[in-house]
Amino acid sequence: MSIVTVDRPRGLAPPVESRPIDMALLGCGSVGSAVAALSATAAARPIRIVGALVRHPERPRPAAAPARLQFTRAAATLLDRRPDVVVEVLGSVEPARTIVRDALERGIPVVTANKSLLAACGDELAETAARTGVPLLYEASVLAGVPFLGALARRPHAAALSRLTGIVNGTSNFILSRMAADGEEADAALGEAQRRGLAEPDPRSDVDGIDAAEKLIVLLRHFAFGNASVRDLEITGIRRVQRLDFALAAELGGDIKPVISARRSDAGVDAFVGPALVPQAHPLARIAGVDNALQLRTAYGDLMYSGPGAGPVATATTILDDVVEAVSGTAPANIGGMRRGTVRIDAPATGWFVRLTASALPAGDEIADLLGAHGIWLRRTAERQGADRAAAGLLTHPCARERIERALAALDAAWRCEPFAIRALES
Amino acid sequence: MSIVTVDRPRGLAPPVESRPIDMALLGCGSVGSAVAALSATAAARPIRIVGALVRHPERPRPAAAPARLQFTRAAATLLDRRPDVVVEVLGSVEPARTIVRDALERGIPVVTANKSLLAACGDELAETAARTGVPLLYEASVLAGVPFLGALARRPHAAALSRLTGIVNGTSNFILSRMAADGEEADAALGEAQRRGLAEPDPRSDVDGIDAAEKLIVLLRHFAFGNASVRDLEITGIRRVQRLDFALAAELGGDIKPVISARRSDAGVDAFVGPALVPQAHPLARIAGVDNALQLRTAYGDLMYSGPGAGPVATATTILDDVVEAVSGTAPANIGGMRRGTVRIDAPATGWFVRLTASALPAGDEIADLLGAHGIWLRRTAERQGADRAAAGLLTHPCARERIERALAALDAAWRCEPFAIRALES
Repeated sequence: MSIVTVDRPRGLAPPVESRPIDMALLGCGSVGSAVAALSATAAARPIRIVGALVRHPERPRPAAAPARLQFTRAAATLLDRRPDVVVEVLGSVEPARTIVRDALERGIPVVTANKSLLAACGDELAETAARTGVPLLYEASVLAGVPFLGALARRPHAAALSRLTGIVNGTSNFILSRMAADGEEADAALGEAQRRGLAEPDPRSDVDGIDAAEKLIVLLRHFAFGNASVRDLEITGIRRVQRLDFALAAELGGDIKPVISARRSDAGVDAFVGPALVPQAHPLARIAGVDNALQLRTAYGDLMYSGPGAGPVATATTILDDVVEAVSGTAPANIGGMRRGTVRIDAPATGWFVRLTASALPAGDEIADLLGAHGIWLRRTAERQGADRAAAGLLTHPCARERIERALAALDAAWRCEPFAIRALES
Repeated sequence: MSIVTVDRPRGLAPPVESRPIDMALLGCGSVGSAVAALSATAAARPIRIVGALVRHPERPRPAAAPARLQFTRAAATLLDRRPDVVVEVLGSVEPARTIVRDALERGIPVVTANKSLLAACGDELAETAARTGVPLLYEASVLAGVPFLGALARRPHAAALSRLTGIVNGTSNFILSRMAADGEEADAALGEAQRRGLAEPDPRSDVDGIDAAEKLIVLLRHFAFGNASVRDLEITGIRRVQRLDFALAAELGGDIKPVISARRSDAGVDAFVGPALVPQAHPLARIAGVDNALQLRTAYGDLMYSGPGAGPVATATTILDDVVEAVSGTAPANIGGMRRGTVRIDAPATGWFVRLTASALPAGDEIADLLGAHGIWLRRTAERQGADRAAAGLLTHPCARERIERALAALDAAWRCEPFAIRALES
């Protein structure tokens, strides 16, 4: 752990209006370097980096990192420099948690883009922010370049949501979009994403749904659904999706997208992360490539926010806007509903997309009869006959997860048809 | 002009935190009535209407108007009741302008949804707000139920736009969507919109582009393109669009949408309002029915905000959120760039969609030769042969408006082919 510092000008303080914002930068990877570069060139107000902490000083800095930054070794001194604001883009929970908490306790506003931190202890940090009255802003943590969290935090009537549905992981969306458009299998599409710099060398957080789940936890708190942890959620990665599924889904009138969803009901909140069949008429069906989008159901209709949900410049731009707001004196200390009660996760009946494959499949009536015996009714079916494999796609009427799981086990026992099921969204 | 009043409770003021917000309501038509109804039932903070001014007291109030409101006759006394906030939904310029200015001068925050007022004298009112330090909020004036203006006013880095493109008139979008989907002509689609309550009995402001132009003027100021008046803009209504155009546009790879657009260039701002050919791949091509959307081009990508752009409940919800913000003490007095310099309107080269119809059209080569003689080059062409009329659709490479107008006159002189041209957006 080291600190990167720049020389601070000495002498008389300039007049307040033109005084630069003193910023401490936690993390100087791709996003941190973009923050440093943008704050030197594009800032609406002058920004001065009074120290930059990096976790891996031995690693080469991205080209965007300012050359003038120098290392020191004393982590604890960073906040002693009394910055006007701390920008935290370290990623993962510690040491971010300790430093952010210390900053808030010392009265220093914090801007973070770190969804892992917020998912793990956003409730605790928001409580600290509310108690101390010090702003904790995190606009870049969910949709990177698309501002909406802060706006809706100030708009309680619009923000009373009954449902939110979105695509918040660009890597997964890129991979599934390639599979849909070019008939690639998941491994090939992931390889291409990695070659293009759209996926990490270790892509597990993206393709296994962890990144999306952390963002959903942030949204559940922000929109006062309640507190939850990633462990509480139903999370499915995209690895088991096959290119065959897109052909079957298209016949059933849909596409397959990497979705997050939360729906309030009297029984609790139905929240899940995973690939889902999305009807062609659904606005999310049109969000392709690395674009992200969030659909928010208000009492008067559906709002949709979409745009660049990742990328160093998009993220850094949002962070700089948070920085300006954090030091403005008008930022709310606790922009979300971070201290609400625990989410009661409920898993109500929902539609399912089921894929069956075998060297030979039984007649549709037989499949329908077996499902009917489990209380599951089919809305539509699709079939594909390959050279040596037959495949069927089933779109069910809503039924509970346990019911579909028991039925899948029965299908596999009867016909060795490797059943695979994902959720189907309503249009 | 009359004032509607409710009895104000007398006696000691309650503690500050639970004290209701005292609201003066200017206008009690469909939106004003929805504001009154929502503020009585759904408000995040108690709201008390201390007086409601109506322009036509003789007209029946909408069912949503609270029964307890009573009339008085003295307009000037409304502000004497010292409301915490004035909500202005009168429509048109006067008397709204005078009352809003008086309120700001007296230190009373104003929330307005009146784009006609803002288009006519938003610069003057914003200057008053900035000088007095009193908030003037207008989130509902452009996209009604989709909050984005206030958010971006606080986010200078994201809000540095090079281009904005949108669909901001739900009536026009409904009409063109019906023509596209059901092959109706414009008159039939307008009649249906009126029967559904989606178009005014006098639809000129919607179908002739005035409503959209007023919203574009608000956006030009808000995003610091500069000050302009509706008279400065290129405005085309949707009346001359025919159902034939949708078939030709589809062959050319596009749809026809009622668009607003502003693009910065070194020479100035290219701003227009009117039906335009929108490529199928453009996000606006998917905005159908009464939905509205705005695409904002930032330095790091395109943001898109979409949702219910009209309707009493959507508009009233946004107004109530502005009310809460206006009295919070943290609202900026001048949320937009309302006092910037005048827009220099430029009309650079742009692509065009041209429709020709005649009992017989010349060969494509002849048309291309005539256009080529005017310095206009074709990207794609489409043809339709009806029972007694032939039609052609042409998609041109970019050229200046004067050039296309001269060419259309020459086409009509040569072949009496009733040429009609609208802009074509880039994808």
